[in-house]
Amino acid sequence: MTKACRAGPLFTDLYELTMAASYYAHRIFSPATFSLFIRDNHLTRSFFVAAGLEDVLDELTGFHFPGQDLEYLETTGLFSEEFISYLAQLRFSGDMYAMPEGTIFFANEPVLEVTAPIIEAQLIETFVLNTIGFQTMVTSKAARCVHAADDRQLIDFSLRRTQGQDAGIKVARSTYLAGFAATSNVLAGKIYDIPTSGTMAHSYIEAFDSEPEAFSAYSDTFPQHTIFLIDTYDTIEGAKNAVKVAKAMKEKGNELIGVRLDSGDMADLSKKVRKIFDDAGLIDVKIFASSGFDEFKIAKVLSEDAKIDAFGVGTKVGVSADAPYVDIVYKLVHFKNRAVRKVSPGKITLAGEKQVFRKSNLNGCYLEDVIGVRDEKVSDGAPLLEKVMENGKLLRSNPSLQDIRDRFSKNFSLLDEKYKSIHDKVDYPVKLSKMLKDLQKSI
Amino acid sequence: MTKACRAGPLFTDLYELTMAASYYAHRIFSPATFSLFIRDNHLTRSFFVAAGLEDVLDELTGFHFPGQDLEYLETTGLFSEEFISYLAQLRFSGDMYAMPEGTIFFANEPVLEVTAPIIEAQLIETFVLNTIGFQTMVTSKAARCVHAADDRQLIDFSLRRTQGQDAGIKVARSTYLAGFAATSNVLAGKIYDIPTSGTMAHSYIEAFDSEPEAFSAYSDTFPQHTIFLIDTYDTIEGAKNAVKVAKAMKEKGNELIGVRLDSGDMADLSKKVRKIFDDAGLIDVKIFASSGFDEFKIAKVLSEDAKIDAFGVGTKVGVSADAPYVDIVYKLVHFKNRAVRKVSPGKITLAGEKQVFRKSNLNGCYLEDVIGVRDEKVSDGAPLLEKVMENGKLLRSNPSLQDIRDRFSKNFSLLDEKYKSIHDKVDYPVKLSKMLKDLQKSI
Repeated sequence: MTKACRAGPLFTDLYELTMAASYYAHRIFSPATFSLFIRDNHLTRSFFVAAGLEDVLDELTGFHFPGQDLEYLETTGLFSEEFISYLAQLRFSGDMYAMPEGTIFFANEPVLEVTAPIIEAQLIETFVLNTIGFQTMVTSKAARCVHAADDRQLIDFSLRRTQGQDAGIKVARSTYLAGFAATSNVLAGKIYDIPTSGTMAHSYIEAFDSEPEAFSAYSDTFPQHTIFLIDTYDTIEGAKNAVKVAKAMKEKGNELIGVRLDSGDMADLSKKVRKIFDDAGLIDVKIFASSGFDEFKIAKVLSEDAKIDAFGVGTKVGVSADAPYVDIVYKLVHFKNRAVRKVSPGKITLAGEKQVFRKSNLNGCYLEDVIGVRDEKVSDGAPLLEKVMENGKLLRSNPSLQDIRDRFSKNFSLLDEKYKSIHDKVDYPVKLSKMLKDLQKSI
Repeated sequence: MTKACRAGPLFTDLYELTMAASYYAHRIFSPATFSLFIRDNHLTRSFFVAAGLEDVLDELTGFHFPGQDLEYLETTGLFSEEFISYLAQLRFSGDMYAMPEGTIFFANEPVLEVTAPIIEAQLIETFVLNTIGFQTMVTSKAARCVHAADDRQLIDFSLRRTQGQDAGIKVARSTYLAGFAATSNVLAGKIYDIPTSGTMAHSYIEAFDSEPEAFSAYSDTFPQHTIFLIDTYDTIEGAKNAVKVAKAMKEKGNELIGVRLDSGDMADLSKKVRKIFDDAGLIDVKIFASSGFDEFKIAKVLSEDAKIDAFGVGTKVGVSADAPYVDIVYKLVHFKNRAVRKVSPGKITLAGEKQVFRKSNLNGCYLEDVIGVRDEKVSDGAPLLEKVMENGKLLRSNPSLQDIRDRFSKNFSLLDEKYKSIHDKVDYPVKLSKMLKDLQKSI
């Protein structure tokens, strides 16, 4: 598998390096544990889907400062020669507990905990926050779309509007993980072996003297893979033109896969277009729809009984438009054999090394989670954080994206419908164990 | 200058390749002109700042399909061997007109026009939209912050929450272009030679037995570069601790640069902290503030007379939280010697190859823009689109980021204050020339 570009150790905030230099100067190398979690301030999400761990593990296993990065750091004039030499030999030697990708989790639950010499644990903060935060956010948004679409196929169309190149590639992975059927993104198709999908733009139609001519030309090239875009001039006329060309295709033994609507009143148009195809005996021709879809618009058109078989979902999911960031943080919780807690106003952190235990009913459906102390036992609670790295070494190979996708799909079926509401935030019960509560009081 | 990762030709939607294959099969190679512009639907922005052109030109000058990309395309089973061979030798051979980075522009104005054989012009669509769209969006958001901060320094703190890696790097460039003073992003500092800034996190304070001990340790390491974070336990107590350490620093001949507030009521705390330092005779110690700042929060705390000298601006600018995408499109406007126009409901495009002319008053202040036909003359109107590429060759070297930043700063001073309101969208006058209107009617 070819990866997208590697971030490298300079993908960090300067203060991570200045703090590291100060720890180094004072010979502070004790192990520290940092906990990664999403705060619940102003959240509009009832659940999250863990994603991004593969990139984190890939980055950490190869973590080192190349010579040109050290040369750049020298030019800043901030760092001693001794510290630069120390960085030159630095590798990531820590332990990591993490929820596997595709795990459903909730606000305030640690999704990842790192224990490493404090300099190492600090230097990776920015990268870990960025990577898990963004991919978790988009995967969670995509899961909401999958739920709203109620078994209809979704295709990621976001590449042209994602926030940069890396985002485009990660959105394709995240949406596929959440259950999308395909992506328009060819590079992501190559990197992650995701099915790709796509047909034609308005410009293709305009490049021909007439719409039927454009349809015919396209179906000549792709007799088995044709979806006509029918709204360039008029959707209803477009549907009629598509019927004519579909019949001509049939005479040659080919089937039109579908047509795509890209503007106008989607529920109304889809019903009219469905009728046009049904009346022509083309009941297998599918109707695809695109243009501003997200979970809200999908739910709206389906509530209006739209006759849409598949949705192209783009911009609004690719940037998580209604919630374009999550308040994800990476906080020191354990240092020098003591639990640590920050108490700045409105910013409480749960001290100590932790585990999240999930209780389920006899059918496997999720009942409640208990955040506990790492090593305690919670009866009937399955631990969600797995040890994935020890002394900087991976403890398992990365699961395939298909396996992660299957895991999420199963997990999602075990989450009660009420937590999947796209309109209301419904709090899933997350409790603290007595041992964890006692630990907080003891500080 | 080291660049971030290159996208490559597979950074595209599949339909660009299927359309290309169909054009190739039908021997359609005529030049097409596509126009890039931002639609004004639901916009909350009065102006935009052009950005991203450097990346577009870099990508296009190196545009080609590496062998492994062609091999991947073969595996899709969609493309003929002949077409794959055609792609193997394809380079970008087109012309491009574009507004230089740092140019202020408005909705519906073409910011870039490409003329190339239709296959080439189509294949670059996704990359061009993504690149210009994202960087323009963030630069425009950053310019609003610069305006709200009214000459106070701004520092980009967004890296941990940007939408992926590429976004993090581009946000640092975009915010610097718009007038930010520095970034916390070390990688962007290296790539773009942007000043970097940063000091300490809460975890650094917590790693020591007490706050004064942490402050002293840090100032030992960086006697000339110290800004204390003072809200870990209590901002007022933190300020008092900072005063003590600052006095100890003074005795050794060093000056504390400043302190940073990161939570609580910023206006109120900043006044109290200012008084604590002033009363101690430390009038040169600066107050930095971070935590959720964007143009709205900056304006709010300054309206409350906050005593803040510099703002760390992060997440909300890094993802353009109030407007996380722009409706940027790339539309066919000219093909086979005729102007082309799409008329889908609510999606009107101005046909023809165009130029944007800007009229200014005697002081250089912007009065109005006229969108005209590419080759017409508009009296007193300065053309904004420059020819930057001909037959696939760059016509000029890329300006330095510093030059672009200076250009924007000058341009921004020529835009009337009323268009800079962060709360209201105020329409700058953008007219169509008679020649362009006549062209639209003729289609």
